[in-house]
Amino acid sequence: MKILLVGANGTLGKAVAAELGNRHEIVAAGRSSGDIRVDITDLAAIRAMYERAGKLGAVACAAGNVHFGPLVEMTPEQFDLGLRDKLMGQVNLVLAGREFVERGGSFTLISGVLAQDPIRLGASASMVNGAIESFVRAAAVELTDHRINAVSPTVLAESMESYGPYFRGWEAVPAKRAALAYAKSIEGAQTGQVYRVL
Amino acid sequence: MKILLVGANGTLGKAVAAELGNRHEIVAAGRSSGDIRVDITDLAAIRAMYERAGKLGAVACAAGNVHFGPLVEMTPEQFDLGLRDKLMGQVNLVLAGREFVERGGSFTLISGVLAQDPIRLGASASMVNGAIESFVRAAAVELTDHRINAVSPTVLAESMESYGPYFRGWEAVPAKRAALAYAKSIEGAQTGQVYRVL
Repeated sequence: MKILLVGANGTLGKAVAAELGNRHEIVAAGRSSGDIRVDITDLAAIRAMYERAGKLGAVACAAGNVHFGPLVEMTPEQFDLGLRDKLMGQVNLVLAGREFVERGGSFTLISGVLAQDPIRLGASASMVNGAIESFVRAAAVELTDHRINAVSPTVLAESMESYGPYFRGWEAVPAKRAALAYAKSIEGAQTGQVYRVL
Repeated sequence: MKILLVGANGTLGKAVAAELGNRHEIVAAGRSSGDIRVDITDLAAIRAMYERAGKLGAVACAAGNVHFGPLVEMTPEQFDLGLRDKLMGQVNLVLAGREFVERGGSFTLISGVLAQDPIRLGASASMVNGAIESFVRAAAVELTDHRINAVSPTVLAESMESYGPYFRGWEAVPAKRAALAYAKSIEGAQTGQVYRVL
């Protein structure tokens, strides 16, 4: 099938493309690279992306920014970044993408372990991830023409060089393990699930 | 202790005031009634409320608006309502309130069952509630001078007259049961908890 992969050039996105690319056609989208450039905070850009991509079997997202910093110093604008980008960016990928995804096709969003298992500096990420997981459960009961799931990995092994100090004692997973959960979501039959990769 | 109760005049707020009012001093706040008027989407109004209320032992919130409607018709502005009001309104109650709440005092936020158990028309509520629950878990690891918990009730018996058609088959709880969870949060010793009242 044809799969639109947003964030295809990131650590996780590359692993998702590697997992799915041998048996599916990947349309790579990203903020600064890929077949289609898209800023997911811009609804018009999302719509333009779908117009270019055409009919799809699935949409997968491995992109989304949030601000990391001390909670007591976090400004409303810094919270807004995560709400506009990783949260509403992905919600808009779903709502704007419905008409371009075949009946029975799927949306796979990215959440993250901080929804359940917090770290210092991660309050915005936790909030956004929790929102995405509950959104996916709720959207699944209304989007009866499509399936929708989230993948929630713990910290990626490939990211430990930069994020290691924030995740001391955490057991990282390789991105290719998280990528399997995308295949499960896209090629399986479930909906409303959060696939935790721990 | 002196407890600031935001949303004191709502169905749940009245029950919280009844549960706590006999043994504590309640400062009632609300959008259109109470000792102090406050719109929690307005950070300056929140700050003014705290200046008026003075030193507090606890802050409890039983207020927060979200938009209910079909997901496929929901606009970014309708999602924004819940993000600005029930979500960031409560986050700002915590961040702006820190300096007014005594060491060891608590913040108790309101979430709701839709975070886990969705209904049609409730995608925004689910999203916001999931965000609040994950925020509370994350905030608890950073706010070491205070405690923070969420109360997550199922549909209230008192609300079934108006919301009943959206909750067919749901077992409602009386507001006074949900109010107990506020007492547990405020008068207990736990932090980072989500008290589900089902």
